[in-house]
Order: sequence, then structure tokens, then C-alpha cells
Amino acid sequence: MNFASDNTTGAAPEVAAALVRANSAPHAMPYGNDPLTRGLAAKFSRLFEREVAVFPVATGTAANVLGLSLALPTYGGVFCLEDSHIYGDEVTATEMYTGGARPIPLRGVDGKLLAPELAKAIGQHRPSNTHAVQPAAVSITQISEFGLVYTPGEIARLAKRAHRHKLVVHMDGARFANAVAALGCRPADITWRAGVDILSFGGTKNGCFGAEAVVVFDKARAASFLYRRQRAGHTFSKMRFLSAQLDAYVNKGLWLELARHANAMMRRLANGLARIPDIELHHMPRANLVFVNMPTAMARAIEKAGFTFYHWGNAQWHTGRLVTAFSTAAADVDGFVAAARAASSGRKPKRPMAFLPRF
Amino acid sequence: MNFASDNTTGAAPEVAAALVRANSAPHAMPYGNDPLTRGLAAKFSRLFEREVAVFPVATGTAANVLGLSLALPTYGGVFCLEDSHIYGDEVTATEMYTGGARPIPLRGVDGKLLAPELAKAIGQHRPSNTHAVQPAAVSITQISEFGLVYTPGEIARLAKRAHRHKLVVHMDGARFANAVAALGCRPADITWRAGVDILSFGGTKNGCFGAEAVVVFDKARAASFLYRRQRAGHTFSKMRFLSAQLDAYVNKGLWLELARHANAMMRRLANGLARIPDIELHHMPRANLVFVNMPTAMARAIEKAGFTFYHWGNAQWHTGRLVTAFSTAAADVDGFVAAARAASSGRKPKRPMAFLPRF
Amino acid sequence: MNFASDNTTGAAPEVAAALVRANSAPHAMPYGNDPLTRGLAAKFSRLFEREVAVFPVATGTAANVLGLSLALPTYGGVFCLEDSHIYGDEVTATEMYTGGARPIPLRGVDGKLLAPELAKAIGQHRPSNTHAVQPAAVSITQISEFGLVYTPGEIARLAKRAHRHKLVVHMDGARFANAVAALGCRPADITWRAGVDILSFGGTKNGCFGAEAVVVFDKARAASFLYRRQRAGHTFSKMRFLSAQLDAYVNKGLWLELARHANAMMRRLANGLARIPDIELHHMPRANLVFVNMPTAMARAIEKAGFTFYHWGNAQWHTGRLVTAFSTAAADVDGFVAAARAASSGRKPKRPMAFLPRF
Amino acid sequence: MNFASDNTTGAAPEVAAALVRANSAPHAMPYGNDPLTRGLAAKFSRLFEREVAVFPVATGTAANVLGLSLALPTYGGVFCLEDSHIYGDEVTATEMYTGGARPIPLRGVDGKLLAPELAKAIGQHRPSNTHAVQPAAVSITQISEFGLVYTPGEIARLAKRAHRHKLVVHMDGARFANAVAALGCRPADITWRAGVDILSFGGTKNGCFGAEAVVVFDKARAASFLYRRQRAGHTFSKMRFLSAQLDAYVNKGLWLELARHANAMMRRLANGLARIPDIELHHMPRANLVFVNMPTAMARAIEKAGFTFYHWGNAQWHTGRLVTAFSTAAADVDGFVAAARAASSGRKPKRPMAFLPRF
Repeated sequence: MNFASDNTTGAAPEVAAALVRANSAPHAMPYGNDPLTRGLAAKFSRLFEREVAVFPVATGTAANVLGLSLALPTYGGVFCLEDSHIYGDEVTATEMYTGGARPIPLRGVDGKLLAPELAKAIGQHRPSNTHAVQPAAVSITQISEFGLVYTPGEIARLAKRAHRHKLVVHMDGARFANAVAALGCRPADITWRAGVDILSFGGTKNGCFGAEAVVVFDKARAASFLYRRQRAGHTFSKMRFLSAQLDAYVNKGLWLELARHANAMMRRLANGLARIPDIELHHMPRANLVFVNMPTAMARAIEKAGFTFYHWGNAQWHTGRLVTAFSTAAADVDGFVAAARAASSGRKPKRPMAFLPRF
Repeated sequence: MNFASDNTTGAAPEVAAALVRANSAPHAMPYGNDPLTRGLAAKFSRLFEREVAVFPVATGTAANVLGLSLALPTYGGVFCLEDSHIYGDEVTATEMYTGGARPIPLRGVDGKLLAPELAKAIGQHRPSNTHAVQPAAVSITQISEFGLVYTPGEIARLAKRAHRHKLVVHMDGARFANAVAALGCRPADITWRAGVDILSFGGTKNGCFGAEAVVVFDKARAASFLYRRQRAGHTFSKMRFLSAQLDAYVNKGLWLELARHANAMMRRLANGLARIPDIELHHMPRANLVFVNMPTAMARAIEKAGFTFYHWGNAQWHTGRLVTAFSTAAADVDGFVAAARAASSGRKPKRPMAFLPRF
Repeated sequence: MNFASDNTTGAAPEVAAALVRANSAPHAMPYGNDPLTRGLAAKFSRLFEREVAVFPVATGTAANVLGLSLALPTYGGVFCLEDSHIYGDEVTATEMYTGGARPIPLRGVDGKLLAPELAKAIGQHRPSNTHAVQPAAVSITQISEFGLVYTPGEIARLAKRAHRHKLVVHMDGARFANAVAALGCRPADITWRAGVDILSFGGTKNGCFGAEAVVVFDKARAASFLYRRQRAGHTFSKMRFLSAQLDAYVNKGLWLELARHANAMMRRLANGLARIPDIELHHMPRANLVFVNMPTAMARAIEKAGFTFYHWGNAQWHTGRLVTAFSTAAADVDGFVAAARAASSGRKPKRPMAFLPRF
Repeated sequence: MNFASDNTTGAAPEVAAALVRANSAPHAMPYGNDPLTRGLAAKFSRLFEREVAVFPVATGTAANVLGLSLALPTYGGVFCLEDSHIYGDEVTATEMYTGGARPIPLRGVDGKLLAPELAKAIGQHRPSNTHAVQPAAVSITQISEFGLVYTPGEIARLAKRAHRHKLVVHMDGARFANAVAALGCRPADITWRAGVDILSFGGTKNGCFGAEAVVVFDKARAASFLYRRQRAGHTFSKMRFLSAQLDAYVNKGLWLELARHANAMMRRLANGLARIPDIELHHMPRANLVFVNMPTAMARAIEKAGFTFYHWGNAQWHTGRLVTAFSTAAADVDGFVAAARAASSGRKPKRPMAFLPRF
């Protein structure tokens, strides 16, 4: 009964089985020279409907900053939201992986980084001015850290603007599966077809033990990747155990099936909570993450009923962050809603609650 | 029938079972806030007979350079053998993790870096001279990349010299288990009791899927570790899956049992090969790795018989690198020896073969 | 007739003479082992009324980031204004000199970074949270990039808050002389007595060819400085030529005399401009820099009259940045004011002009 | 009477006069937007008989590592002699400026890094092996740190080998003038015509206060230079004072005239010393630097006679490093020789003295 994060889950049965199966071979050549790893290129190329370069890593941060290191010179900057994972939750990983490039925090509009804001930021950051960090990339998170889903059109407009200024477009897809499931689109529609150049394709939060893939849509751009991964200590000698996870994860649409379940559980949760008058949802979630405001007493009561989730605030109001996952049970969702309802005053608060995001 | 490296193996059954077991819990708090990870400190403190700080990571390179990053300022240097993994096989990982510190390659004597050579190197590298990289650490590999085992006395003398000049002593213990098993000593005897400050405690090569532990013997020195691991992208959200491996690995002496088997297989292999007149062993191995010279035709014949191993050289002689592992079967060892014997000329070569190390 | 910046000036006669004099000795030992450099410690210690460590460098950026490198671990952050030189005008120098630490841009209130804003920023940046950049320093510019002067009390309150959280307090004093002259205080009053730990003591803009001093008030903190300066390529072999400039600059109060003149010229300029109804001053300047709004046509007319200054804006209004220097002539100031007055409509604009800062 | 280094000298009269002259203009636009700096491109293009990009900096280390930063990715290495300035005298500058690339020390043959040694080193450093630092550049010092002069042919053969493997060829020309003067060649002959891609063109040791030029022969390669120089803090706001030095230095062949004098003084010195039986010269110098062995008592006696030079060794023999400069007086050279002769035993030592280089 944990709604704190989708990373509190374990691995999906199919993924766990694949790992055990990969371990049944007595030997495999190391560092990716094994059949499972070698097979990923074809699998991901099919998935994305074009030839791509794909590299397994074990964490989302590694995927993000290895990807960004392909795009950022030491004097370059990457635009991102101030609430993004790369800006706020990876300490100084971008700086470390690029030899000193800079993530530049933008405010966004309603939680998203869209083309007009990017255009403004580029203008303010003085391309070609030798005193200024040079805009070199833009990174968005799909679904965003607030749970919002970028539409293909939003991405395309952002990427078009980025490419006009020779910026590389990076997507942190820690919850990419939830976005594709929410939009009902093809993976290509919100990546290369919309102008995304490099994708962190997340697996960990949606059913893997710890496996992500860096997908580079223009293979030439990835020429230095293996050196970069090695110096970062992210080349697994027994890489087949990462690849086995990814292989099973994308096999027969498992990844989307898992994400659809997570999204469905969030809808069920949100629908339930939306009917409680003293709960305010940040937005009506299409994917598997939402922020909500609720009376502090209600947050405590839900917790007391056995449900774990992050929440913070003042004596009167709290903001909570709720995440569902591939393994969330409908009964747990219903239990959460029931606990909230039981603690409700039954009345709408007079003033709209302040939304207090913080992770 | 793979003698190329111990990293071609899979995971030991006990380790695999522990991973499956860890996955049976529906939820666990992320980033190390789980019982398995929290339990490691006590387990490793018992193992090392003193209170230690211990941090799981997934690769040996990560363990090495995160450990070294605790010791090296940006203007500092770490002495190591020119054949060491940190110098020759991690691209520029040390530089990356330290903000630009330098691994300084030394030649060593008979494959080892001992106190006299260190003393000489320190003298030549001009401590306190503001034009020179400042000696800040020394790193040795136990067992070495050539398969040699440092004795407690050798380590103690090296560390004493190092500490006299305020150098931190780091040990790359990718095959630490094989060293402890070979020496029949206690883990403490070749680490902190001999003066080692930071240890990369290897698990991957000896039965884990991918799990190593950075062990810091003076806990105060580790104060910044978690920030450093996070910025490196080496903090697993589902860290329990690393910790489960390490937990099973050190449980009831499994790690030493596995290593003892690997060492025994190497002894069996070396004993067999030593009796073949046109094979020359680099040294009589106590642990699980050795280099050998043999006629090129013999190397090819062994390979043809189905045995994989690294070898290189000229038309007449080849040098091979042979590694046994926790899972090596006696029958395979015997098969290897038999294939070599079958290809032998039965005569000792007139001139001693040149030893050609290269990995 | 240049009001674009104080860095368009040459060197003051006394400084130029000192350089020529230093060149009359046929030889001097290099890298700072000369009498002029050795004498700086005593001179600056007298100037600051306590024993300080002082290091000559040639540029303000070098002074800033070498100073910051003493305070910032690779996982640390330095709070600064988003308009500060270290954030906006040094590309990624802070990142480069620290191995990847991060300057964190804050908005400030009325152009200053004061204690309450710092307190809020520290809270938001989650000290001890291992996912977050760790607050390690705060940097203010005295006088600020907008020309504002921090009072001793403002600095003391900021530093007190910083020290409560173990943040190092850095001051970019590119125009430190103008601040001391404006406040009529002692150099100590706005540095160590108010809690400043590290100062970039500027000389270039106020009469040197190219000379700044990094002043570290707690000498122990500077232990690694010489290694850091050397690896940055900022250790001059003929360092006496930097030291000669600094020596002459602080001799018999020359630096303050020069700054008082620059400030007086700015007062004369501001008093003149303040009487022109369609000019709006950002603030009534106490030092030597101010921003002004004026009709675009007026900006062009002043320029046509032979006065150089930075200005930008739209078709109707422009914002200009005006800087006076040690060598500004009163006649030039009067000429500027006269040119502005001649282009004035004589009427106050109906709506207050928007202030548009940008450098 | 200082033979310790050419960096103990001051500035040549013509250079000093140029600086004073540059200061007579009341204003100049900063950061290189001044006529003197703008004029350098044409001057250096004439000097090198092709269009080049040229950038003033103030120190040799800055010139070296800014130049190298154009050639080295974060996973790359630069081959150099273990005695080179970039390896032994710049702390970790190369690492810092490149985001972690590595200088790889080679032994050289008779003090030089020639094509065969480079070829061997490339082979050993495993290009395209993703575990290895990738060879990306080679750097030689002309004249070398031992005072040796690379011939055009030696450079051409080295560069040809380097380019075959796509290595960039860098030349540390801290004493480039002495080399050109010694060879009597054109600057182009030992740079781009022989295959050099990037040159640190030294001025400081040969008559400037502190001025070097980074010369990039393929202008396209220099596209990012200004951003790199700015983030390094090596962009002078009053850059005309660097450019004035360089302008005067290359004007009417002054630089070569100064170097010819220094070389002539060294010949005079070497000729004198060569006739003293218990002095052994490392080589018969063509440029302005040489190492010599002498009895320890002789070294002390010379010093007592008022001559400063670096020397070290044991109780019996010392090795000295002697450097002449543009300002060395013949009388001082003769005095040095006389002092040595006066302390000579008049006999050749029985065994050849061991050559003990160290700086």
C-alpha cells in the first residue's frame, strides 16, 4: 500500500523470469558482447520504426547525463525546468559528465517547458556572446515531474524551435511508457518524429530491477558513447543482466501493458479523490502521477490507515504526491480513497488551496 | 569452457535466490532506505572486525573511482601500476570522478607496487612543489591484474610509507575474495590492519550479477560519499537489489567458499600446465588468474578444442591469460590441460619465451 | 568620451610607472619568489587590519573562481544573483574550476542578495538531502552589477545567515574600491568584520593594466591555493609585474583616491541626468555605475555627439548602462549631460518607463 | 648574473615601450575589440605565411592547455614526454581544461619524442578499445625541456604518423623563437608545413612581460576558442596590453633578434665549459638551454662567485641547468666560465658522470 513512488516496486514477473533465464547460461562474453545485448539494437529499432543506437545502463541519472554528454560542450548549457530531475535531483551530475556544462533552470508555464518559453530563454542567453554559456540543448521530462504529459504537437513545436538554434533535444523518459500509454501513440510520435534527438528510455520504475536504455536516434551522434559510459563506470561486465531486463520489458508490448495498468490505477484514484470536496488535484492525471492538496489532518489519517505517500505543508494544508505503478492493486486504490473520504469534512474550503510542489 | 575471465560467469545460485527473494516484497523504500541495505553496515563491520562505512555500487570501476574521489583533490595524484585497471581499463574515470586528478603510472617490480618503489616515486613527484601534481593516494590491486597476491607484510610496508607522506591507501579488490582465500587470512589482515583506508570489495566476478561494495574504514572519511554517488548516477533507486546480492554473498562465508573453489581450479590448471615442457607460467598462481606462454599453434589447438581464452603474440609464441571462477568445473580444467598436452611438442624451447603481458 | 565601462580605460600613471620601475631590475626569481610579490602579504594585511593571505592574478574571473574553488566541493553550490558576473558573464568558469560545482541563480530584491532571500534559498535547496546540490557558498558583488552598494549591515546579516549553514561567503570585488570610497568605511568593515571569507580585490577596472588579488581572510583556508592557481595557468612566471601593479595600486591610498574620483564623476553625471525629465535613473548612484532609461532617440543623439555607452531596448525606450572611471574627465561628464538635455523633450513620460536590465 | 631561467628576465625595451605607448590612448574597447588585438591576425598570418587564428594569453600553461582543449575529448589522451612541461610542471592543467582528458607520459629517446616511439605508443594504447583512453593528440616542446631542437624532418615524420591515426599535433613553443633562430628556418617550416596543428607561441621567456599566443593553423578548429578562454578566466578585459607586447615582439623580427642573442650567449657559454675537463655537457646546445654535470664543489664555487643557477645531485657530482636569455651579457657568460675553470681539478673524471635530469 505504497503510493510514494513507482520506484518502491520490485520487478515484474516477466522481467524477473528473464533475469533468471539469462543466468542459466554458464558463460557469456562480457561488456555487451553477448547475444542479449547485441539483440537490443534490432528490437529497439523495430520499436521506434527506424534504426537507432541503444545502450543499456542501470539508472535514470546515468541515462540522462550520458545522453546529455553527447550534446554539451564544456562551455554549453542545457535548458530545463527548475523542477526537472536533471536540475534538482541529480546533484551536479550534468556538470560531472560534461566537464562543466550547465543546466539552466527555467520556470515553465503550468509545469511544462514549451516553445515560447524556450525561444525567450535562448534570446536571453546570448548565443555567440563569448561571455555567456552557449545554449546547446534542451531537456524535457515525459511524463513530467508533475505528472503532465507532453503532446506530440507540443514536443514538435519545442524541437523545431530548438533545432533552429542548433540545440539538441533530450527527453528524460523515466516514465516514457506511461506517456505512450496515456497518449495511445507510437513511441516514434513523441520522439524522433517530433524532433527528439536523445531519449532516456526508462525501465526501472515500470517493472525492471534497474535498467534504462539510452536511445540515440541519429546513430552518428552516438559514436563516442561507449568511451563515455566506460569512464563513468556504467559499463556492466555482465551486461546481459541489464539487457535481459530490457529485452523482456519491451517484448510483446509488456512495457505498455504495465504502464496502462499504472495509468488506469491513477485514473481510478483520481476519480475517487476528485469527488472529495476538500481535496484539490493539481491536474486530472492522464498518466500515473499527481499532486494533490488536502487538509493536513486528512493526510495524517490516510497514513494512519496504512498508506505511504510523500506529503508536506503547514498545520492546515498539505500537498501530497501520489504515484501508481504497474503493480498497484485496485483494492489499495479504493482503500486510499476510502481513507481520504472518511477523513473529509465534506465541505469545500472557502479559499482555493495553495499548490505547494516540492519533491 | 570459458577461461577468458571470471566476468563471463553468471550469478551463484545463492545470490540468484536472494535476488528473487528480495523481489517478493511488494514494496521497499528507495535509494537505500530499505532493510537489506541498512543491514549491510553491521554485516560488513562484523566481517572486517571494526565499524566500517559500506556502500553498494554495481561496477568495479564505480567502486574504484568513487573511493578514490574521497582521497584526491583536483590537484592530486594517485600512484598505481601502469598495468592497473584504474590506469589502463577505465578510460579517464579517475579524472572524471575527481574533477581532474591524475593516476600516475609506475612500473612496479615483478608485477607489484611495493614500498621502495612508492618511496622513490613520491620523491620524484615533488610533494609541496606547486608546479607538480601532489601525491595524495596510492592504489594497489589485490589480487593484482597479473594474478599476484600481496602479502599482509607487503601491504603494511607500503601503507606505512604512504601514510608517512599523508597518502591515502586504496585497494582495488575486484578479486579480494580470491586473495583472502589464497592467504587464508582474515579480511582485516590485508586491509585496515595493514593500513588500507578504502577498499573496493568485489562481488561481480565471484558470483554476483553486478554488485560491489565500497568499504571505508574510517567512517568520517566517507561523509561526502552519498552526494558523490548520486552525482555519478550510481545510486540505485531499487538499491535493495544490489544489497540483496551483497548480503547473500557475504552470508555464512559464501564469498570465500566460492573463491576457494576458483583458486583450487586454478591450482589444478597450473599444476597440469606446469608439466608441459613448452608452456611457461608467469608465476605459480595462488589465486585464480595466471599468464602463460605457449607455442602459437598450441593456443590455436586449445581454442579449437572448445576452450575460450585471451591470447596474443607473434607467429611462434603466444601469451595467454587464464582465469578460473567460482563455477569452473574440474572436468573443464582437465580438458584444457589435455588439449594443451596433445598440442605439445614435448620439448622445452631452447630460449626462454618472452613474457608478453597485455590485457 | 567613453562611458561604456571602466575596463575601457588604461592604467593610472602611478601604476604604469611602477611597472616600468619593476622592469629596471635585470633579474628576479620567478613564480612569485620576488620581493614585490613577497611584500604583498604585509601590505594587504595592513590594509585589512589582520593577517591575510593574498595572491595576485590577472583577471577578475580568475580571482572569482579560484577563490570559489577553495569553498566548493564537486557536489556543492554557490548562491548568487542571476545577474551576477559569475553566473552570467564567465561562461562555465565556476564549474571548470571546481570540478563541477554549480552556481545557483537567485532573483534578489531590488538588485541585491540579502539575508532573507538567502535563508529561503537554503531552505529550498535541501541541505543534507543526497539528491540535491549542497549549498556551500554565497557570492555577492560589491558594488553590484547594477551599481548598488551593500552596506556593512547588509553584508553582516547575510554572512551570519550563511555561516549558520556553514556556507562560505565570497565577495566579487571587481569594483571593491568604489564601494569602500562610497561608504567611507574601512576595507575590513565590509569584508571580514562583516563575515566575508574570500574577496576578489579588483584592480583592473580602477587603474591597473590587469591585476586583481584574491584575499583569503582565514589563511588556513588558502592552503591549496598555489596548486589551484598553477593548474589554472594563472601563475605568472614574471609575477613581479602583477605584484608591481598591486603594490603601487594600494600604496598611499592611491586605489581609494582613484575610486573617489570615479564616484564623484558619477555623482556629477547622475545629478545632471536626474534633472532631465525624460530620463529615469535606476537608482541614485553612490558608486560609479548606474542604469538609466531614456528615449531611444536621446540615446542615439548622445552617441552621435561622440559618447560611447551600452544601451538597448525598443523603438521608444532604451536602457543605458553608464560607468565612470578613475580617468573620467569632468568636461566629458558635462558634455554627456548637455547632449542628453539637448535631446530631451522636456516632458516627463506619462507612464513610468520599464526598467530593462541586461549587460 | 642569473642563469637559472630565461623567465628571470624582465621585458625587452621595445616591448616595454609598446606597453607604455598602448597606455597613452585614453580608451579602448575591451575583450579584444581593440585595434592592436585585431591586428594580430594579419601579423601572425604574415609571419606564418598562411592565414592563421591567433589568440593572446598571458602564460605558457594557459596557451598549452587552451590549445590542447581544442583537440582532446574527455575520454582522450595526449602523448608527451614524461619530462615535458605539460606533464610535469602544470599540476593537472590538461585534465582541468579538457574535462578530464589525460596526458600520457612517454620516455623518449635521447630526450626527444620521435615518430617510432609515437607509433609504438599508439599501438599500446589501443585505439577504438572502449576500455582505453583514446589517443587524440601528441605534444612536443620546441626547444625541448632539455634544450634540444627538433628538426623539420623529425617533426614532419612525427606529424605524419600522428595524422595517420587522426591525432592532433601540438607544439609547446615556450622557446619557439630559440628554435627558429637555431635552425635558421622559417616559422612555417617547423609548424604547419611539418604538420603541426596548434602552437603555443612563447613570448614571455624571450622579452615580454607575460604574453603568449595560441596559434591555430586550421582556423575552423578554433571555433570554440573564445568560449574556452573566457571560462578559463584568460580573457583580459584590457587585452590590448597583451596584444601590444606581442605586436612589438614580432615587429621587424625583434623576436628572432632576441633569440639569436640568447642562443649566441649559450654557444659562448657551452664552448667555454666544454674545455673544462671535469664538466660534462648533456649535449652541445644549439639553442639557449643546456644541462651539465660538474663536481659539487665546482657548482658551489660558481654560486659563491655570484652566479645563480639550478643544480642538484649528491656529495660528489651535481647536475646543473643553465639558461641564457635575450638580456644575458657576454661578460656574465665569461665570468661564469672563469668561475668554473677556477674551481676545476683540471682532470677528467675516471668514470663518466651520471646524467641526472630534474627541474
